[in-house]
Amino acid sequence: MTNATGTMCAMKAPHAHFHPFVPAGGVGSRLWPLSRADAPKFLLDLTGSGHSLLRSTYERLIDLSSSGVMIVTGRTHAQAVRSQLPECSESDLVLEPSPKDSGAAIGLASAIISLRDPEAIVGSFAADHVVEPTEEFHRVVEEAVQTAATGRIVTIGITPTSPSTGFGYIRASESLGLEAAPSAMKVDEFVEKPDEDTARSYVRSGEYTWNAGMFVAPAKLLLSHLAANQPELHAGIMEIAEAWETDERDAVMDRVWPSLPKIAIDYAVAEPAAAAGDVAMVPASFTWDDVGDFAAISRLNRAVNVDEVAVIGKNKRVMTDNASGIVASDTSRIVALIGVEDIVVVDTQDALLVTTQEHAQRVKDAVNALKENGDTDVL
Amino acid sequence: MTNATGTMCAMKAPHAHFHPFVPAGGVGSRLWPLSRADAPKFLLDLTGSGHSLLRSTYERLIDLSSSGVMIVTGRTHAQAVRSQLPECSESDLVLEPSPKDSGAAIGLASAIISLRDPEAIVGSFAADHVVEPTEEFHRVVEEAVQTAATGRIVTIGITPTSPSTGFGYIRASESLGLEAAPSAMKVDEFVEKPDEDTARSYVRSGEYTWNAGMFVAPAKLLLSHLAANQPELHAGIMEIAEAWETDERDAVMDRVWPSLPKIAIDYAVAEPAAAAGDVAMVPASFTWDDVGDFAAISRLNRAVNVDEVAVIGKNKRVMTDNASGIVASDTSRIVALIGVEDIVVVDTQDALLVTTQEHAQRVKDAVNALKENGDTDVL
Repeated sequence: MTNATGTMCAMKAPHAHFHPFVPAGGVGSRLWPLSRADAPKFLLDLTGSGHSLLRSTYERLIDLSSSGVMIVTGRTHAQAVRSQLPECSESDLVLEPSPKDSGAAIGLASAIISLRDPEAIVGSFAADHVVEPTEEFHRVVEEAVQTAATGRIVTIGITPTSPSTGFGYIRASESLGLEAAPSAMKVDEFVEKPDEDTARSYVRSGEYTWNAGMFVAPAKLLLSHLAANQPELHAGIMEIAEAWETDERDAVMDRVWPSLPKIAIDYAVAEPAAAAGDVAMVPASFTWDDVGDFAAISRLNRAVNVDEVAVIGKNKRVMTDNASGIVASDTSRIVALIGVEDIVVVDTQDALLVTTQEHAQRVKDAVNALKENGDTDVL
Repeated sequence: MTNATGTMCAMKAPHAHFHPFVPAGGVGSRLWPLSRADAPKFLLDLTGSGHSLLRSTYERLIDLSSSGVMIVTGRTHAQAVRSQLPECSESDLVLEPSPKDSGAAIGLASAIISLRDPEAIVGSFAADHVVEPTEEFHRVVEEAVQTAATGRIVTIGITPTSPSTGFGYIRASESLGLEAAPSAMKVDEFVEKPDEDTARSYVRSGEYTWNAGMFVAPAKLLLSHLAANQPELHAGIMEIAEAWETDERDAVMDRVWPSLPKIAIDYAVAEPAAAAGDVAMVPASFTWDDVGDFAAISRLNRAVNVDEVAVIGKNKRVMTDNASGIVASDTSRIVALIGVEDIVVVDTQDALLVTTQEHAQRVKDAVNALKENGDTDVL
């Protein structure tokens, strides 16, 4: 893997008003028992890189910004995030008292940044995706920033590698013809996660890309769409943002946050903006993985194999005989795999998962079953 | 399963001079990490019966004897055996200072018993086999004792259920025509573990049974064959036996035992005796399992299934989704199996095994690999 830090010094901020932020939420329950409520996916090193997905995301973004990278996460993760990102200032750490979906998180970050820099172009990037190489990511974001500077909300579209039913899609058929952003296209519409036949027709058509939830936009434009579509949410986040750089920050947050509506940014901003013709897409030329299940972890960890088995974690006592797949272990136990193919073994102190790469997507159902069964001690 | 204890009171000892004993040795490394050097197979409850294989064996034998059941085992297992068999007297507990193969163990037990009862008919029964129903076992042993009383070494032959390459075979083609033992036959020869083609031809012929290593014999006849074939071994065990009921027991054991030759009872007695025409076979009418691998454990534990998964051990936190096979766990961890078929998961504090019932026989190789690798802490 390319190490994101290796290219940091070569970059310059592409735009003096560009301010990236990272909404860091979601447990990633398809990766249980590796991911837990108190150890969500973004805080884990799932690629064998030596640092967490959040840290990698932060390092990928820091040189694109002249003002730091803001993190929006749950209060329960404050200490873990501070320890992983010691250079992140307290005013760039937005701690949600409770989960409120992406509308509130992204809206508040945009509002705080917009009051600091009225000409801000914000960028929202998930905390738990793997992107490489960093140079290409930087080039694509730069194009997205140039496109956003023309007054558009700009998504980054991932070229589909399969007819996935796990992602929403973006339809875009016409170039915007921008000199500073030659690959930018006009977005016709966002479509929800399709069934498999529909997904196949999308991929065949060549007009659809995966919506990876990364976007770049003038803060004011984003907030104006939010004000039009979700006036209550807009008023709430503006009230918090206005108190942000004052001693009232925590008090206002505690008072206002619980009243904010729960809504995804897709419904609050992206889809209405697309309908208004305000949305563009820059296709990604980098490889991208949302580390959605254990099969992804196996793909991303080719470097630390024992025979055909990818080994994640500190446990080096793995022995194999005619086995392939993945072992993730944070214990010091001997793990012996004999004659099992495409196996997934996750070995933690209080929970053991044995499944296959083919069935890895069903782990989420198991977590729900454990929840219903009252086994919350291991979730 | 029939509980062996359920039929105990109905039986009478078939013969006043019959003295069964149990050589309890062997780790059972194909059942690692359930079985360990300090927790061998015979000390484990592998059938879900609530007591160990040794305890079940003891209970199956105790009512056949008027004098108790002697146990021969390693010194390291003394406390475990005493705790599992509190009714076993100290003079019926033969503790080997070091492993010496079956010749010494069976020879010494026979010698001690022969000095107590010169007309003794001894019976040797492995500690880690599963036999049912007990009534049929008793009937077969009674026939074997009657046959032995005519001056023969009598094996019990198991009707093959498959062309196994894991057992030795007994060829017997001619009835002995004994009134008190109508099914007893003359043994033509013992043959070693065959290859698969040979095994198939054995099974087809109908003349071969599996040699399960159970036999009944006049102690004097057994010892006379031992004296003829292994005079050094015979002299050594007689010296220990003569000191057995004295204060010198431990001192003589410590002095003589280390010098005894290591040899299997098959070579020391059974094969030469068969060549001399002294060996008979009574076919087993009971079902028999040597619990040779995890597939056997799965077969023997039909009663404690979670869906299609047999659960061995105290761990009741097993959840399954489209899974079949076996989980043996002595931890309190959640064990989740998703979309894995015929899987074998053995979850212990310091070692985890994941394999399939098909590959279960290869666990022994893994144990050897761990030994070579110096991972003796988990063996």
